[in-house]
Amino acid sequence: MPKFGKGFGTEIASSPARRCEQFLDLMSVRLSSVADYEALLDKYDTWMFDCDGVLWHGDRLIDGAVDVLDLLRSRKKKVLFVTNNATKSRKSYKGKFDQLGVEAHVDEIYGSAYAAAVYVSSVIKLPKDKKVYVIGMKGMEEELHEEGVSFLGGTDPADCTLEPFSLANFNLDPDVGAVLCGLDTNINYTKMSKAFQYLTRNPGCVFLATNEDSTYPAGDGLLPGAGAISAPLRYALGKDPVSIGKPASTMLDCIKAKVNFDPKRTLMIGDRLNTDILFGQNGGLSTLLVLTGITTEAEITGPNASSIVPDFVTQSIGDLRVIPR
Amino acid sequence: MPKFGKGFGTEIASSPARRCEQFLDLMSVRLSSVADYEALLDKYDTWMFDCDGVLWHGDRLIDGAVDVLDLLRSRKKKVLFVTNNATKSRKSYKGKFDQLGVEAHVDEIYGSAYAAAVYVSSVIKLPKDKKVYVIGMKGMEEELHEEGVSFLGGTDPADCTLEPFSLANFNLDPDVGAVLCGLDTNINYTKMSKAFQYLTRNPGCVFLATNEDSTYPAGDGLLPGAGAISAPLRYALGKDPVSIGKPASTMLDCIKAKVNFDPKRTLMIGDRLNTDILFGQNGGLSTLLVLTGITTEAEITGPNASSIVPDFVTQSIGDLRVIPR
Repeated sequence: MPKFGKGFGTEIASSPARRCEQFLDLMSVRLSSVADYEALLDKYDTWMFDCDGVLWHGDRLIDGAVDVLDLLRSRKKKVLFVTNNATKSRKSYKGKFDQLGVEAHVDEIYGSAYAAAVYVSSVIKLPKDKKVYVIGMKGMEEELHEEGVSFLGGTDPADCTLEPFSLANFNLDPDVGAVLCGLDTNINYTKMSKAFQYLTRNPGCVFLATNEDSTYPAGDGLLPGAGAISAPLRYALGKDPVSIGKPASTMLDCIKAKVNFDPKRTLMIGDRLNTDILFGQNGGLSTLLVLTGITTEAEITGPNASSIVPDFVTQSIGDLRVIPR
Repeated sequence: MPKFGKGFGTEIASSPARRCEQFLDLMSVRLSSVADYEALLDKYDTWMFDCDGVLWHGDRLIDGAVDVLDLLRSRKKKVLFVTNNATKSRKSYKGKFDQLGVEAHVDEIYGSAYAAAVYVSSVIKLPKDKKVYVIGMKGMEEELHEEGVSFLGGTDPADCTLEPFSLANFNLDPDVGAVLCGLDTNINYTKMSKAFQYLTRNPGCVFLATNEDSTYPAGDGLLPGAGAISAPLRYALGKDPVSIGKPASTMLDCIKAKVNFDPKRTLMIGDRLNTDILFGQNGGLSTLLVLTGITTEAEITGPNASSIVPDFVTQSIGDLRVIPR
């Protein structure tokens, strides 16, 4: 058994080793040998994966990702996919897995649109006669519909327009009790203005965001993320939304409601320190950072390293292929 | 001569009065009598006006505004209009004055689009072979054109679209050296994404905003302002733009380059503490707050009062009508 740092520190007993362990608590363990990856497999029963930047980039699979998922399943590990992508419902996100040839079941997929819909229906318990004004796409509407939540805005052609917005022609719907904002590539001034009216003029109207990612990795580079889409409302209102997705614990609460897992034997794998890794840490999970996505080596080493320190680091999820089947 | 507070404090000589004056420095002087307004007229030669919320609301004149401007002109005061509105060039903003029956000359009007164009051409001196990517409307393009600055984006139909944006189909123009962002009711994901590419991929590309107003007063209520339009880029980039309009001193530098005035004998009149009043204070001008726009009584009195304290407060610019002609 190799001498790991934080994750496997309980095996180090002597006093100098304990001091060493405390030092290692401030560092990530770099995984590289077969023994390292075998130890990881022994320690964790539930493996939670971020998707974009971990399993794929846009429409390109990360080399070895499918093999590693197959390996985990063959070892009877519980595999869950936890994504901040709010543009797709779980059902349509399943289509993405199918298209890329990655085995996944709908009940293994947790998206921020789904978690947001559950939050509205089950946590704030929005009364049935109330509605959500949606800045978001079809996936968000599908999840709200599945949870029995009424909504407006979203993909409605009347709201997907660059025609001038006029307050004189706007009918404030008094039943709008929440504004839910996610990545919306149809974002426009009409949506921003309507959402702003609901949040300032409907008493008690709740400001929700599926997630706060500042950017997201498209196949060919970075584009503004869901956090950028809710930013105009944050700025105009001078307040932040309640955020549902990673790193907020709301997403984990949603998973806990559906799946049994032991946080101490659960590993969260992601490419982003301030969403994936922080999410794992907030929930008491162990964390593995991969460097195939947003986070670069410079962000975890050297003088400008982030204060968010994952338990483990490996270059790519494909590295686990070295474990013999 | 009435005993004013801060503005007229030099006339209070005795030591208790001096202490009183220091106390009054923390308070605004409420103007109400004919003598108050006459004293104001005696003290200031140059009167700088914010427009929306001071002279008009959308398309409705504030009662008495025209009479007061006529009064100032009849007393040989210099009148300037200083607006953060970046959707109109000075020439087309003049049309708004004409339409509402307010006398104004183009060289009395200072807009943030004009100031931004002057900033690009004369302060950062963008080389002639470089271009500005515009998130903004026709007025901004007109002012850039007048200053001889090349630009793209803005009102270009290819950028005013809700069609999906794809990096694969995007040609990064290496000559874009600045992104200038103002109020743009055609804001959309394509514009956000293109601006984000220029700011992250073109070395040295400068991030500029005409102004940071979180909202603006439309005729029938508040709508998201220019600050909300640049907010997605701020959020995605994790950095703020250089802001040109009020309260930044860039706008005053632009006025100084064109008009002679003595800051000690200049009064800035506005309805917003964090733009108009702060702008005046940053520039060493005296300040008069009117309550016909954004700022409410609660924001200047009581426990939650702002730390930005104007020298003078009056209900409406129309109050000055009590001065005999």
